[in-house]
Amino acid sequence: MTKQVKIVEVGPRDGLQNEVPVTLEHKVALINSLSKTGLSVIESGSFVSPKWVPQMAGSAEIYALINQINGINYPALTPNMQGYELAKQAGVKEVAIFGAASESFSQKNINCSIAESLQRFEPIMQQAKLDGIKVRGYVSCVLGCPYEGDIDVSKVAEVAKTLYDMGCYEISLGDTIGVGTPAKAQAMLAEVAKQVPIEHLAVHFHDTYGQALANIYACLQLGVSVVDSAVAGLGGCPYAKGASGNVATEDVVYMLNGLNIEHGVDLTKLAQAGANICKALGKTTNSKVATALLS
Amino acid sequence: MTKQVKIVEVGPRDGLQNEVPVTLEHKVALINSLSKTGLSVIESGSFVSPKWVPQMAGSAEIYALINQINGINYPALTPNMQGYELAKQAGVKEVAIFGAASESFSQKNINCSIAESLQRFEPIMQQAKLDGIKVRGYVSCVLGCPYEGDIDVSKVAEVAKTLYDMGCYEISLGDTIGVGTPAKAQAMLAEVAKQVPIEHLAVHFHDTYGQALANIYACLQLGVSVVDSAVAGLGGCPYAKGASGNVATEDVVYMLNGLNIEHGVDLTKLAQAGANICKALGKTTNSKVATALLS
Repeated sequence: MTKQVKIVEVGPRDGLQNEVPVTLEHKVALINSLSKTGLSVIESGSFVSPKWVPQMAGSAEIYALINQINGINYPALTPNMQGYELAKQAGVKEVAIFGAASESFSQKNINCSIAESLQRFEPIMQQAKLDGIKVRGYVSCVLGCPYEGDIDVSKVAEVAKTLYDMGCYEISLGDTIGVGTPAKAQAMLAEVAKQVPIEHLAVHFHDTYGQALANIYACLQLGVSVVDSAVAGLGGCPYAKGASGNVATEDVVYMLNGLNIEHGVDLTKLAQAGANICKALGKTTNSKVATALLS
Repeated sequence: MTKQVKIVEVGPRDGLQNEVPVTLEHKVALINSLSKTGLSVIESGSFVSPKWVPQMAGSAEIYALINQINGINYPALTPNMQGYELAKQAGVKEVAIFGAASESFSQKNINCSIAESLQRFEPIMQQAKLDGIKVRGYVSCVLGCPYEGDIDVSKVAEVAKTLYDMGCYEISLGDTIGVGTPAKAQAMLAEVAKQVPIEHLAVHFHDTYGQALANIYACLQLGVSVVDSAVAGLGGCPYAKGASGNVATEDVVYMLNGLNIEHGVDLTKLAQAGANICKALGKTTNSKVATALLS
């Protein structure tokens, strides 16, 4: 098992994208407080039209207002070239692109095939290379799709390899609907690791069915060393109303502490950052660790 | 990893003991509905003074009123000889006794040492042998104590072995305050398994810090094949107000399904039984699987 894990905090983007909208001030306060926890990556915005995703409005302003700390990455999601250019203008130094491992999901969500969706990102890859901007790749639906159910692990590996070959330095494997269980997560990861070196892979679990930590533990056993999570378990699942969203960073940190795996994050400060954004959202935390610590 | 798991449903006892009191009718309805899910063990009551534990009042009536199905065990907790006699009169065929792995916990909770507490159960063991009543043993605080913190795994093994040598056919290892993490759970289980054959061991995790499923997965990897859990994650933690209680049976079943481990339980019926008792309690379920399924 790995001795050190990099946590990619996705709360301000993947989390807040699936919550009720909060003000710019709350977003900035969240990112600034997360910057003080020891996290090295904080996904901070998405340059997508606010017509599609009103929760992500104001991403350019976020980058202007946050206190960016040396040594911390603040990546943004860029769904297209227009978003990429806006991100670049906002001074973003790392962007993320994405592809689904499910044809049905790709068709229903962005109305094109997986292959077409990846081709559309080619201009971003080329420009990012010229601009010296790093690109991360997300693969969604790696353990199941709301439309077609089980996903062939070879399809996940193929999409991950394509993103890697396009130039993404890290590929995050997302169980978008949280249906995965440990042995299936291991089987998927093992297949992808045949195509992409495991040190360039991240796991991204949603806790819809409560399996996220068990899945992460299973994947750590295979040597993965990058874990995506969201403070307070921010987010939700559009396919299961009221269900949990991203695995809570606090819960991941607690488990890593118990496993003696280094991560550099201060759990108390993290729980406090989570408590503040939950207050702004008017919701209770989805982190069991935070609930226990702050009780 | 084991191919088959026996789930010991502790919701009606360990769960409801840590919830607001519900009526006798609700308890009976819960046990009867659980009896239709395929569960083979349903802990159904505790013969303890209602002055101490008002939630457990009416345990004798429960046994008179429930429809006991052939092939299902309905054990009861018996903290002393008086409780044992009442359980026997109520027709209970299996009882449970308990000991802590923490001296401080034993002293604070029952005002005697661990050794004294176990000696006090000797008369129950002798009488149960004469009566042909099976006895299960619980060890509490196996991964931590609210008063003294970390617990030496050798102490857990010693208490487990004592209960086993006294005649308990199965020893349930309880992380009473839910602080354990996977590697620590494995280290504890491995130590106990040196003293008690692993087929006579059960794991009993609370989800206070969200680690329960990861811990169960880790222990399944060592060959444990009995898992305690509570429908809807009933229960709570007296040491962390608002925190989660027992791991939810629905979430365990979902994980076992994914691992292709047989258990015999119908997840849909289980989730419905959980939904009904949550309604009676006026609370939302602590099972993420139930939340997702019933959304």
